[in-house]
Amino acid sequence: MSETFAFRLFKTDCAARLGQFTTAHGVVRTPAFMPVGTQGALKGVHWRDVREAGADIVLANTYHLMLRPGAERVASLGGLQKFINWPHPILTDSGGFQVMSLSELRKVEEKGVTFRSHLDGAIIELTPERAIEIQNLLGADIVMQLDECLRLPAERDEIARAMNLSLRWAERSKRAFESVSPERALFGIVQGGDDAGLRIESAHTLVDIGFQGYAIGGLAVGEPQDVMLRVIEETAPALPNDRPRYLMGVGTPDDILEAVARGIDMFDCVLPTRNGRHGSAFTRFGQINLFNARHAHDARPLDDQSRCPAARDYSRAYLHHLVKANEMLGAMLLSTINLFYYQDLMQGIRSAIEQGRFDDFRRKTREGWACGDLPPA
Amino acid sequence: MSETFAFRLFKTDCAARLGQFTTAHGVVRTPAFMPVGTQGALKGVHWRDVREAGADIVLANTYHLMLRPGAERVASLGGLQKFINWPHPILTDSGGFQVMSLSELRKVEEKGVTFRSHLDGAIIELTPERAIEIQNLLGADIVMQLDECLRLPAERDEIARAMNLSLRWAERSKRAFESVSPERALFGIVQGGDDAGLRIESAHTLVDIGFQGYAIGGLAVGEPQDVMLRVIEETAPALPNDRPRYLMGVGTPDDILEAVARGIDMFDCVLPTRNGRHGSAFTRFGQINLFNARHAHDARPLDDQSRCPAARDYSRAYLHHLVKANEMLGAMLLSTINLFYYQDLMQGIRSAIEQGRFDDFRRKTREGWACGDLPPA
Repeated sequence: MSETFAFRLFKTDCAARLGQFTTAHGVVRTPAFMPVGTQGALKGVHWRDVREAGADIVLANTYHLMLRPGAERVASLGGLQKFINWPHPILTDSGGFQVMSLSELRKVEEKGVTFRSHLDGAIIELTPERAIEIQNLLGADIVMQLDECLRLPAERDEIARAMNLSLRWAERSKRAFESVSPERALFGIVQGGDDAGLRIESAHTLVDIGFQGYAIGGLAVGEPQDVMLRVIEETAPALPNDRPRYLMGVGTPDDILEAVARGIDMFDCVLPTRNGRHGSAFTRFGQINLFNARHAHDARPLDDQSRCPAARDYSRAYLHHLVKANEMLGAMLLSTINLFYYQDLMQGIRSAIEQGRFDDFRRKTREGWACGDLPPA
Repeated sequence: MSETFAFRLFKTDCAARLGQFTTAHGVVRTPAFMPVGTQGALKGVHWRDVREAGADIVLANTYHLMLRPGAERVASLGGLQKFINWPHPILTDSGGFQVMSLSELRKVEEKGVTFRSHLDGAIIELTPERAIEIQNLLGADIVMQLDECLRLPAERDEIARAMNLSLRWAERSKRAFESVSPERALFGIVQGGDDAGLRIESAHTLVDIGFQGYAIGGLAVGEPQDVMLRVIEETAPALPNDRPRYLMGVGTPDDILEAVARGIDMFDCVLPTRNGRHGSAFTRFGQINLFNARHAHDARPLDDQSRCPAARDYSRAYLHHLVKANEMLGAMLLSTINLFYYQDLMQGIRSAIEQGRFDDFRRKTREGWACGDLPPA
């Protein structure tokens, strides 16, 4: 067990949980949203704004960083925190998900996965042990086990095979992690697709192995939201209360509200920056598409009550112009606005749980989204 | 004459001039470098960082803004300063240069230039009078006359024809400007290619017409630096001492040093942001190409003595990684670093002139560039 990593659960409000965990690089308030810095950078957002938005922790992708600049390179430069100049907590994924989605000629075997780099075509082997080694070299505060993640829908046999392989990899990951600096934490990943029995079996086996946190993987991979929420409901009770629960790769603000209501503590997603690059803003009025011509003459800011300067200081007309003209500044401003929105949502969630009014917060937040936007000027 | 625009020449050091001009939106210290916000935004740089870098004034392109979002649109939104949220001085060019370089099917006639928009193929007419009207709608503090700008080398007859047309357009511009708000200033543009006689004739005629400032156009259009500097030397003495002199579209830090030494007060150029997007940093050690593999392991910052946080806070290894990975943040950091470098160069120039040691500053600055970079780590 880590000497540093510790999770505290402060309060529950129905199934929603308020807590925090500490790492060698600082405290993370939960429920937490982790912005994604795939290649060691958020797309279009300065690091100072990531912090200013309220992020306690970010996610970096092992797959991308192992290929470029390489884990050994990052280690020789003092680790990710120093390399990217983010002296706060970092979680790295195991690389497994990107191997499945980005690389060619991947071959999944008992010992690990072999794939061809999407950058230079090199043949690379990623085993559970190497995934731990890479994340240790990167210097992650939270290390994820290697798992096999399937797209849904998939056949039950195939889901069971991948789930059992992921469990054997979980055991090997735990063993490999024994030699890792105790300041880092290792999370196991529950698999099992949309099958309740497999999910519960996966969760129980992982708990037997023992991890400092538990992720629910293999969701947000093509299934409808109600399937995702059902799987969370079936899985969460099989996880210990005194460990953080991380729903990987999720999601929209609505996904987050619903998952928090079902006991999830941690999230990561590229949506704030990806949608920002595509002209879409997350606001308390719902998603707003700045490409829409109705903004062309609108001198009002996106949201004059936002904590984000960019949402207050620029007119909708200017944001519309920037996205139409494909100016980098449009992507930069909207990505930053979205990051602030996500972090403000998390702060709203945490405050609501603390005050025992999460359900009311969830209802009012969804009512706000439903109004679509401000009435026309 | 404007009630607001006023230029003061504080001091000269040989031909180098220290001064300032005031506009309705604030004071501009000269020699001044104007960052270019082509479509109403600098590429990859937040407006707060443009100001933080030390820019007193920025340039926006009439050609781009008249096509999108349109001058009338900007006017209805309160003018450029409000539209782009830069409440400081703005100079707009006349649109002529971009018509020549970007549009198709342009036809130059006595009344003006007709061209096909590069955006939607619309046929558009730009006359001297319309160029003034557009810039007035945009709300520029400094308005430029429409001129015809040729590429060099060109035949003397052709240069003379374009120069004389530009002078007739200058007269019409002056007349059209009489109905413009007196808080704006109008600059004439000296043409005449690389021919001293034509340049002097152009300058004298413009001075007879009378402008609040004089630009030297038609340089930095393909000619060697020594030709450009010779033309400046031949032209500057024909311009009045009590008006600012603006060398359009220039240039490299070395171009700026040499032009200041020949009496130029104002510059604009896309190099800081364009080179930043292409992995190149301007520093006191000269230009540094961050794509170069020698930076891959270099934990040192680009310049720990820079006033720009990005030049101090990130390692060369990280900047190298970002440009290799084509991450937006690489372009954002390098463009910002370059903007700070240009503004620091201007501040250095102004301080040196004030202290009567411009020649020494020029020599030492060039010695710094000649060293190429820090010695390897």
